[in-house]
Amino acid sequence: MFRHSQLESVKAWLINPAHAAMPLHARIQRAIRQMILDGALGPGKPLPASRPLAKSLGVSRDTIEAAYAQLHAEGFIERRVGNGSFVAEMVGLKPVQRRSKRNSAPANQSPNLSNRGAAISMSGGVRELLLPRPFAQGVPDTRSFPLPLWERLERQVLKETGTHALLHGDPQGAESLRRAIADYVNLERGARASAERVLVLTSSQQALMLCASMLFDPGDRIFIEDPAYYGARKAFEAAGLDCVPVPVDRQGITVEPVLDDPRRAKAVFLTPSHQFPTGAALALDRRLALIDWAARHESWIIEDDYDSEFHYAGRPTACVQGLDLHDRTVYIGTFTKSLFPGLRIAYAVLPPQLVKPMTVGRTLLDGHTAFIAQLTLARFMEGGHFGAHVRTMRGLYADRLDTLANLVRRHLRDFVEPHVPVGGLQMPCMLTCDMSERAAIEAARRVGVELLGLSSLHAAGNGEAGFLMGFAAYSPLELESAVKRLGQSLKADHGT
Amino acid sequence: MFRHSQLESVKAWLINPAHAAMPLHARIQRAIRQMILDGALGPGKPLPASRPLAKSLGVSRDTIEAAYAQLHAEGFIERRVGNGSFVAEMVGLKPVQRRSKRNSAPANQSPNLSNRGAAISMSGGVRELLLPRPFAQGVPDTRSFPLPLWERLERQVLKETGTHALLHGDPQGAESLRRAIADYVNLERGARASAERVLVLTSSQQALMLCASMLFDPGDRIFIEDPAYYGARKAFEAAGLDCVPVPVDRQGITVEPVLDDPRRAKAVFLTPSHQFPTGAALALDRRLALIDWAARHESWIIEDDYDSEFHYAGRPTACVQGLDLHDRTVYIGTFTKSLFPGLRIAYAVLPPQLVKPMTVGRTLLDGHTAFIAQLTLARFMEGGHFGAHVRTMRGLYADRLDTLANLVRRHLRDFVEPHVPVGGLQMPCMLTCDMSERAAIEAARRVGVELLGLSSLHAAGNGEAGFLMGFAAYSPLELESAVKRLGQSLKADHGT
Repeated sequence: MFRHSQLESVKAWLINPAHAAMPLHARIQRAIRQMILDGALGPGKPLPASRPLAKSLGVSRDTIEAAYAQLHAEGFIERRVGNGSFVAEMVGLKPVQRRSKRNSAPANQSPNLSNRGAAISMSGGVRELLLPRPFAQGVPDTRSFPLPLWERLERQVLKETGTHALLHGDPQGAESLRRAIADYVNLERGARASAERVLVLTSSQQALMLCASMLFDPGDRIFIEDPAYYGARKAFEAAGLDCVPVPVDRQGITVEPVLDDPRRAKAVFLTPSHQFPTGAALALDRRLALIDWAARHESWIIEDDYDSEFHYAGRPTACVQGLDLHDRTVYIGTFTKSLFPGLRIAYAVLPPQLVKPMTVGRTLLDGHTAFIAQLTLARFMEGGHFGAHVRTMRGLYADRLDTLANLVRRHLRDFVEPHVPVGGLQMPCMLTCDMSERAAIEAARRVGVELLGLSSLHAAGNGEAGFLMGFAAYSPLELESAVKRLGQSLKADHGT
Repeated sequence: MFRHSQLESVKAWLINPAHAAMPLHARIQRAIRQMILDGALGPGKPLPASRPLAKSLGVSRDTIEAAYAQLHAEGFIERRVGNGSFVAEMVGLKPVQRRSKRNSAPANQSPNLSNRGAAISMSGGVRELLLPRPFAQGVPDTRSFPLPLWERLERQVLKETGTHALLHGDPQGAESLRRAIADYVNLERGARASAERVLVLTSSQQALMLCASMLFDPGDRIFIEDPAYYGARKAFEAAGLDCVPVPVDRQGITVEPVLDDPRRAKAVFLTPSHQFPTGAALALDRRLALIDWAARHESWIIEDDYDSEFHYAGRPTACVQGLDLHDRTVYIGTFTKSLFPGLRIAYAVLPPQLVKPMTVGRTLLDGHTAFIAQLTLARFMEGGHFGAHVRTMRGLYADRLDTLANLVRRHLRDFVEPHVPVGGLQMPCMLTCDMSERAAIEAARRVGVELLGLSSLHAAGNGEAGFLMGFAAYSPLELESAVKRLGQSLKADHGT
């Protein structure tokens, strides 16, 4: 029979609420397995007969038999006819293991990452607020999304496609969606796209990672805007790229540092429609100069057109991809901001020679994007609902930007100057008082308000002090309340 | 006025069916932009007045005005009051660009990839048949999936969660799904999991890629099974790892090459439940020996438990993760085979110290997994539907395996010997005639039958000749028809 302490171990497994989902025989099997692994039951030791053990534990004999059968099937015990059950001799069960007690590594133990893994971990990654509150940036308003319409289209898709929709999808993306995307970017963004050149992805972050691994080797140089979108910089750094910051002014990225640098760079990363975070639109002559540079050096332009749907003063300038007759531009677009983040659909418009390799690379990353969502989105676009939704949201966001700018001018005038952008989902504000950026962000956090500091987006961390205020996801009342709270908190801080 | 050829260029844009989705003014704007970019309209050149151009093109004057307004907004033309419109001087428009004709790079042009990109491209990636036909392997039967039930649960989720479900999700995964997964792997796979240790991903391929980049630097060594799952090998090679093949026998991977190798390896990759492709279950003493090895060397065990739901002879052996008291095992599971490939949900059960870094790494790959699908799956599992579906499919697949084995014995006995596995969705067959593996695969392809050759899964490409036959997705009639066709084709080939 088991010793008292062994019986108690089994009983502890039986009554542990964490094991409530397990049948009794599984709990008993696991408890005995644990004792064998821990070394508490050594090789050759006999196990109790099933009848007395069943009695001690208050379970049926069948339960014990089921536990023993599984232990036997897994090789932990041997059963000798008429002689009972014994712990098996296990070659691999070395003393080091037998002595060790069950002690999970604590979560803060050195995780033994690779160098690149440690760098990625240190970067903090790209985290979004799960429940957006003012002024978390980059978040669209999902409360206005026509969810019933979307659900209806999805039902249609499932009805027509049936269980075929459950199978593996084309890693390049559903043909109907690629066609809808090509039509859209050609019409609205002045792109030169075709369905054959579109690669459907899960997010623009994935597009950046895919570019980083397919087009660059570790140590290769890439020009990036300074300040820059943190998600892009982190993706490139994670892939081992050497990011060379290039200053941005009111006309977007400056081109002299790119054109005059004698060292070869594989690419330049741009957010030309509204530079992130400054909001500047890249001037036409600079676009042409960068295209010319890329063509002459066989370098790439990675164009992240992340929220160009939301331009509030006329139409946005056509994208760089449409101006590039040399096929050096990878254009990246996403539905995260124009529809909703949970959709997980973005895309790249690729130079023809990159379509096949990038599609292959994508299969290694995660196979393909969910097919049902793709077909539903294609139908949403074909039916004109995408265009209609974007128009509605453009009006809503323009009003909210206007509201926020007025609120900031009224309530925060002693502290900041708003730089009202021509588009996008966030407004940069420059600190005009003698408060540090960090102090302002802290003051905001104390009253439940989120600000993204601009300094951290600069390569040297020393840009003009200020912050980004996201406005798209918040009602005028929410904006007003948050601006007032922020104003009071800044005042309190500044007064002391 | 435009020259005749210029007017014809604009007309060509107008009538090109590829531009049917664009309004007239956009087509005219694009046509003129193209001429400017091509150099056909040089800087300073006057544009026709809107009235005569409208007449020549047969459109309204407003259309021309709208086109000119957009060209002006984008910086391509200047408008002088009372003097008309002129092509702007564009600093960036260098002669090299002006001379170049619109010529897209052909798709087969050297794509100028990085070294790692070229290697990934050469690997061919991981492609699945879009419409599975016998005997494409690794595909579950989706025709039996309870889609109406799934749709009902999704409607419930959307009704209860509303547009919140459209927002960014927790990059670690929805808490309810992580709890359901932990309960499932603890009960069914003998794992030691908790919701805090589960990371929800998009596919097991993504899990492999994430491990490869977070746990390894380029050049680090990893032991992999030989023969091995191609998706794992390609993921590791794409990340620059040095894959060291270790022979597999009837008890799974042999452990002496691992234990006796004096050089440090960061990890071993295992498919212990049914080794891919041999179907062997890894013996208990080897599992314990590998755990001991990993603990002593602070190495990792990457356990891909890709289809252990489908075990046809009693319960499968508990997973390695559950035996590992040292927290050195990353357990990978997927719903691609147990539910359906289009779902795009898989998961890893992580050692506690890896949860935070791996979650950060995942945000850089693609943010997070679609939230609505996660919540629907959680409900599907909580309601017991997952267990029920797996049980149903297990019975169905066991019958199909039986059917296939009998068909092969009857119709292909002159050519192959089936190795009937204890589980999984595919059956290995060894060639027993003097036909080459390549010839057999070609003979199959000629009659619309897919076979995956076993040689290619061996590191040296020289394993025993044979192939894998997937059976799960095909009805008995489909299996019979395909086996007969294959038999006739092999006979015809062999006879000649």
